[in-house]
Amino acid sequence: MTTAWAHRGAADPGFSGMLDARERVTGRVPYVINLSLPGMLHALVLRSTSPHALIARIDTEQAKAVPGVVAVLTGAEIDARTDVRSRFGPVFRDQPILAIDRVRYVGEPVVAVAAIDRDAAQAALDLIEIEYEELPAVFDFDKALAPDAPLVHPEPPASGATFADIIVDSQPGTNICNKFKLRKGDIEAGFAEAEYIFEDTFTSPAVQHVPLETHCTVADVRDDELTIHTTSQIPFMVRSQIAEIFDLPASRVRVVVQTLGGGYGGKCYPNIEPLVAVLSRVTRRPVRLHLSREEEFVTISKHGMQITLKTGLRKDGTIVARQSTCYFNAGAHADISPRLIKNGGYGTGGPTSIPNVWIDSYAVYTNRPPSGAFRGYGISQAAWAYETQIEMIAERLGMDPYELRKKNLLENGQTFATGEVLEDCHFRELLDEVASRIGWDWPASVERDGSKVRAKGLSCIIKGTVTPSTSTAIAKLNDDGSLNVLTSSVEMGQGLQTAMAILAAEALALPIERITISRPDTEFTPYDQQTSSSRSTHAMGGAVTDACATIRQQLLEMAAEKLEIALGDLELADGCVRAKGAPDWGIDYGALVRATRSGNLVASGRFSSEGGLDAETGQGIGATHWHQAAGAAEVEVDLETGKVDLLRYHTAVYAGRVVNPVQAELQCEGNVAFGLGQALFEELIYDNGQLQNGNLGDYMIASFEDMPGELGVSLLEEPVRKEIHGIGETGLPPVMPAIGNAIYRATGVRIVDLPITPEKILRGLRAVEAARAADAVTAADR
Amino acid sequence: MTTAWAHRGAADPGFSGMLDARERVTGRVPYVINLSLPGMLHALVLRSTSPHALIARIDTEQAKAVPGVVAVLTGAEIDARTDVRSRFGPVFRDQPILAIDRVRYVGEPVVAVAAIDRDAAQAALDLIEIEYEELPAVFDFDKALAPDAPLVHPEPPASGATFADIIVDSQPGTNICNKFKLRKGDIEAGFAEAEYIFEDTFTSPAVQHVPLETHCTVADVRDDELTIHTTSQIPFMVRSQIAEIFDLPASRVRVVVQTLGGGYGGKCYPNIEPLVAVLSRVTRRPVRLHLSREEEFVTISKHGMQITLKTGLRKDGTIVARQSTCYFNAGAHADISPRLIKNGGYGTGGPTSIPNVWIDSYAVYTNRPPSGAFRGYGISQAAWAYETQIEMIAERLGMDPYELRKKNLLENGQTFATGEVLEDCHFRELLDEVASRIGWDWPASVERDGSKVRAKGLSCIIKGTVTPSTSTAIAKLNDDGSLNVLTSSVEMGQGLQTAMAILAAEALALPIERITISRPDTEFTPYDQQTSSSRSTHAMGGAVTDACATIRQQLLEMAAEKLEIALGDLELADGCVRAKGAPDWGIDYGALVRATRSGNLVASGRFSSEGGLDAETGQGIGATHWHQAAGAAEVEVDLETGKVDLLRYHTAVYAGRVVNPVQAELQCEGNVAFGLGQALFEELIYDNGQLQNGNLGDYMIASFEDMPGELGVSLLEEPVRKEIHGIGETGLPPVMPAIGNAIYRATGVRIVDLPITPEKILRGLRAVEAARAADAVTAADR
Repeated sequence: MTTAWAHRGAADPGFSGMLDARERVTGRVPYVINLSLPGMLHALVLRSTSPHALIARIDTEQAKAVPGVVAVLTGAEIDARTDVRSRFGPVFRDQPILAIDRVRYVGEPVVAVAAIDRDAAQAALDLIEIEYEELPAVFDFDKALAPDAPLVHPEPPASGATFADIIVDSQPGTNICNKFKLRKGDIEAGFAEAEYIFEDTFTSPAVQHVPLETHCTVADVRDDELTIHTTSQIPFMVRSQIAEIFDLPASRVRVVVQTLGGGYGGKCYPNIEPLVAVLSRVTRRPVRLHLSREEEFVTISKHGMQITLKTGLRKDGTIVARQSTCYFNAGAHADISPRLIKNGGYGTGGPTSIPNVWIDSYAVYTNRPPSGAFRGYGISQAAWAYETQIEMIAERLGMDPYELRKKNLLENGQTFATGEVLEDCHFRELLDEVASRIGWDWPASVERDGSKVRAKGLSCIIKGTVTPSTSTAIAKLNDDGSLNVLTSSVEMGQGLQTAMAILAAEALALPIERITISRPDTEFTPYDQQTSSSRSTHAMGGAVTDACATIRQQLLEMAAEKLEIALGDLELADGCVRAKGAPDWGIDYGALVRATRSGNLVASGRFSSEGGLDAETGQGIGATHWHQAAGAAEVEVDLETGKVDLLRYHTAVYAGRVVNPVQAELQCEGNVAFGLGQALFEELIYDNGQLQNGNLGDYMIASFEDMPGELGVSLLEEPVRKEIHGIGETGLPPVMPAIGNAIYRATGVRIVDLPITPEKILRGLRAVEAARAADAVTAADR
Repeated sequence: MTTAWAHRGAADPGFSGMLDARERVTGRVPYVINLSLPGMLHALVLRSTSPHALIARIDTEQAKAVPGVVAVLTGAEIDARTDVRSRFGPVFRDQPILAIDRVRYVGEPVVAVAAIDRDAAQAALDLIEIEYEELPAVFDFDKALAPDAPLVHPEPPASGATFADIIVDSQPGTNICNKFKLRKGDIEAGFAEAEYIFEDTFTSPAVQHVPLETHCTVADVRDDELTIHTTSQIPFMVRSQIAEIFDLPASRVRVVVQTLGGGYGGKCYPNIEPLVAVLSRVTRRPVRLHLSREEEFVTISKHGMQITLKTGLRKDGTIVARQSTCYFNAGAHADISPRLIKNGGYGTGGPTSIPNVWIDSYAVYTNRPPSGAFRGYGISQAAWAYETQIEMIAERLGMDPYELRKKNLLENGQTFATGEVLEDCHFRELLDEVASRIGWDWPASVERDGSKVRAKGLSCIIKGTVTPSTSTAIAKLNDDGSLNVLTSSVEMGQGLQTAMAILAAEALALPIERITISRPDTEFTPYDQQTSSSRSTHAMGGAVTDACATIRQQLLEMAAEKLEIALGDLELADGCVRAKGAPDWGIDYGALVRATRSGNLVASGRFSSEGGLDAETGQGIGATHWHQAAGAAEVEVDLETGKVDLLRYHTAVYAGRVVNPVQAELQCEGNVAFGLGQALFEELIYDNGQLQNGNLGDYMIASFEDMPGELGVSLLEEPVRKEIHGIGETGLPPVMPAIGNAIYRATGVRIVDLPITPEKILRGLRAVEAARAADAVTAADR
């Protein structure tokens, strides 16, 4: 085995931490919410109060008369303009900038006001009158998929931007937004071969990303040039969408992204940017829109899902067939749902080599707010299902779930659900690590202390990264030997800029203090596909390293000529090219750049990966490398109250290579906080389409007090291959099933519907007791 | 002859005009004066009231107590800091950020205040007490160069940034800031060979650039990162100076330049930027300083000069020797004077092949505000001298000055004063053009109508461009086939962005509407040496074309593969690569970029020219190409009032290739306005170092009413060589001597000291009359 567990400070002698730490703790990080442009107007949005209705009448006359109000805009007015497309969307153009003739969810933007301040805008909003004619609405899969269901989009939406990897199989006349299919092997033969077949259904609810910083956009539109300052994880997606909406060359649309106050997938695809841009064009002034927390809750969320797994095993526990039926609640607009169902679908194959797999995965339109990308992108839903079911199966078979997993875990040379042969598999090492760290035993020891019960749970997952994938970077070596790196990857607290600086420093043997990594500005910085899918350190890191390698080569060649030393006898160290073994005989980069008389050395670099799945079979290359993680939880459940405490958690993630140890561990810890909330508390609760808990008083996320007293992180490196694997999401999907499995072990209550609330546990405990009592009666009868 | 006169719209079927014309006329061009950052403070500066004094005492206590005042800073306080260098300068570090122990000119910054608004800052300024101990001061060459002159810089200043082409020969212990020497041939033999020798002295005064937009800087300093938004023609000079002052890697200093409201050389080298940056560091807030017009007048100006030309000729009019002694009044700080004297010095060689030349050119420190670059950079001073003297000589020899010039004008294969052999000479064509357009005749016709006299004058000049010279550019072809070009050249109304867009459009056969040219932002945009010296269309144009050529080649190769057509059978047209002769068989750039799956094609380009002069002889390569122009004026002088009207003016400039006909003509017209003011009105008048007319009420620039009723522009192209020559300054130096020569012809009054005011003409007329009367008396006596 060539792998090794990373130890902070030991594996990498380089920088660890965060380059902008001082700015962060002194409150000087620039966020777009602090941006103010001369003459800037403030926008507010009036939102639909109905989940599904025709707009019968809008009266904005009184609103327009409010002093300080510059524009009051309706969807019909946008639709009547010839200089702007009134609908947008990354896959389907099904999202009106403002609702045009009908509203499709509670919270949908209907009228926008731009005024000299928020007070004037609010006063105007209060004076707008809207009459709706209510329509029947659908919120859940059953109703939405019924044969006579009301349609969220009666007209099939037009295709929008295209992705290289998108598979479109929408079904007009239904609420099926898109469908993904995977067919591996012979599913019927598989189940025929199986000695056990288990079918279980799992659900997880819509949850919110809850970034500290809510969405904010400042648009400054001048004639045929637009500048958009926005909270986006994909600046080039905003650029292409805005260019499309205004029918402009992409070169005329400038998207600038400062540091984000968190993203978690919720800032991937445009939502408020088109509206703010239109308001700026209409008013001919800069316009700012900053969502309130309440608005954030109805703007984008994680998909609620329902997954049914039918799994066939041989007697020895080998899984031979799996059929998955996955439903993802897209809400009223497609956003990225058409692609997410692919990951959520193939993800149900799990870290398991199953010869026969049949997956149908659906994005379903409903009259709920739109769902989009969310940390763990489809996989945390899939993993909740398969990592819960594997333990249910182990229980039914009387097996150690640890052993049942190990029997089935993917090994090098085996095929994943997509048919691709995997190498670089480390599932066993990861599972072994967390099992050993948590002190896994079987039969499971359950400690009881009064009303409190303690037990442990495991899980192990596989997650893809977006494929194909591309990043480009530019490196500019200045004439004092300092380096500017231009990238369009987004710093959102994950430490992107520090990771890039470390990689550039390494590629050019330059002190990290002399390196500056740009923020994205599509006018200047080269293309990056997206800052999501845990891809940036891998993909943009590759592009940055590539650009620096070109400069490195130029430096070596120039120094070889100047120093009259063979290229092979030179090395780069501390900003100098020098003779190997003679550290004083060298020349610093600044001098080499100055000698070129060009003021700087400029090079571009590129990362690119290829892949894709067949539309009919889902077979192909799902990801050029696979994220792997395991988790182990120890919980304490109070049997009287149903309250769960996460006592200990250990996460183990395959990192390939750890670039920044502190930041990598913090990412893994953040995943536990995220997963903990989703395991125990988080759920967007709707009543007839009305969100009931869209605020941080009623909607609970994990706090520091909820975090486990012991939280361990193990990062696995592979020093030969040294391929950087993203770790921004990898540790998240195991958290919910690990906790759920521990709770089951502690209580005997198996909950298949997240979150695992005290109420569900108490209800489960009562059911268990009732069943025991019934058994006892039956036994007595016998 | 291969040349041709450009005709607007005829020579070039492409774009002509200004891309941002609509923004300009609707007042939406972004200027830094409109920039506002959150928490930004406003700075004001208390300036020296003494031309030379020790600072005995500064009391800022009351000022600090003014509500809203955040910082009050003195030079001594800056000098005491360990985190900042207290002096700066592009060649010598002789410019204190604020005066430290002494002041050297009236208007020198002494104390700076940063406050929440300008009112608070002004209230604080009013409460600052300063006591000076006056020192003897020097203002003019005589006093400054006297053996016992008080020294402006008693301590020799340290060297600052270095230029590849700088020749340093400063003379410590004197007020000589720097000296440039040129020795060609054998000057003594030359004068020995001469049959006539004439020695004349000429002066021109300090004048102000008077850009519509005065200097403005907003600095935002965070810990170890600085952003400077400023009105600079040389962003990378600001970057290197600021990096030096704060001892930071250049990569950490970001200099952003919006469109300038005019520059004319006055915004080349840092003056207010260091102060604003220090204020921002001290206050830890963004700080803005925007100079008032009065402050602008004492911040930078054109060098006052005195040039003595001793010219030896053979009887046939051939010039065989010239000795020039040139003094340029640097004021109290070197700024770029050490380099300007080189151009002003070699420039006195004129467009003439003189075998024996001896030039001494001095920058002289005085207690006046500093002088710096000014449109025509040293050459307008030199040309005033030699183009006036050539006519004085013609008069003395009884020759047609047109013919005398033609006898001496440089021809291909002849050597300039710097010893370099010139090719691509077009002086005769230019002079012939303006002579013919103005209707030159000899003996000159002088029309008289009452008290008004009309006559014509000529001139012809040569001007270098900065050498060596380098520019770099990056081109980003987007996946919709639109193009972003990254350059650090500055748009200041001269049409830089449009010219670059035209060249990029041409290089890539792309509609100009799909091209966006960046503004400079040193974090993102690659190095450019400077936006001055009329070099940008030539140098940056070369870099942009080079970058686009790389992309062009990539497109061709990709298309050749995709279309299966030999590279040679392909052409680029209208954003497509297509088969020659089969316009429908092709593929558009967007599709080619998308096929790469890298989101964009990125390429960098470079322009570079080499050259330089020997420090002892001034021989070498002074400029890789030479700007050439001629001018012809017709004036009407009112003999009763001395008032001069410029009736007609024709300018002829060698353009090599005209990129943007409208803009090129407007540049030439602007030069006439500039020269007209300097010929007739403009002069900074000092009394004991106190500027007397530092405002636009007392200091007159040419208005539209002063412009000639007929203003002709001829642009000469060379369709084979097609080398782009800068034309931003070329037409300026001929204006003053052409007008002066016309006035002489009209009045018989020869004025050698600019400007040619009515008072000087009337005084001259009286002298002429007195001389005639004396002659008459003498004749009567005889």
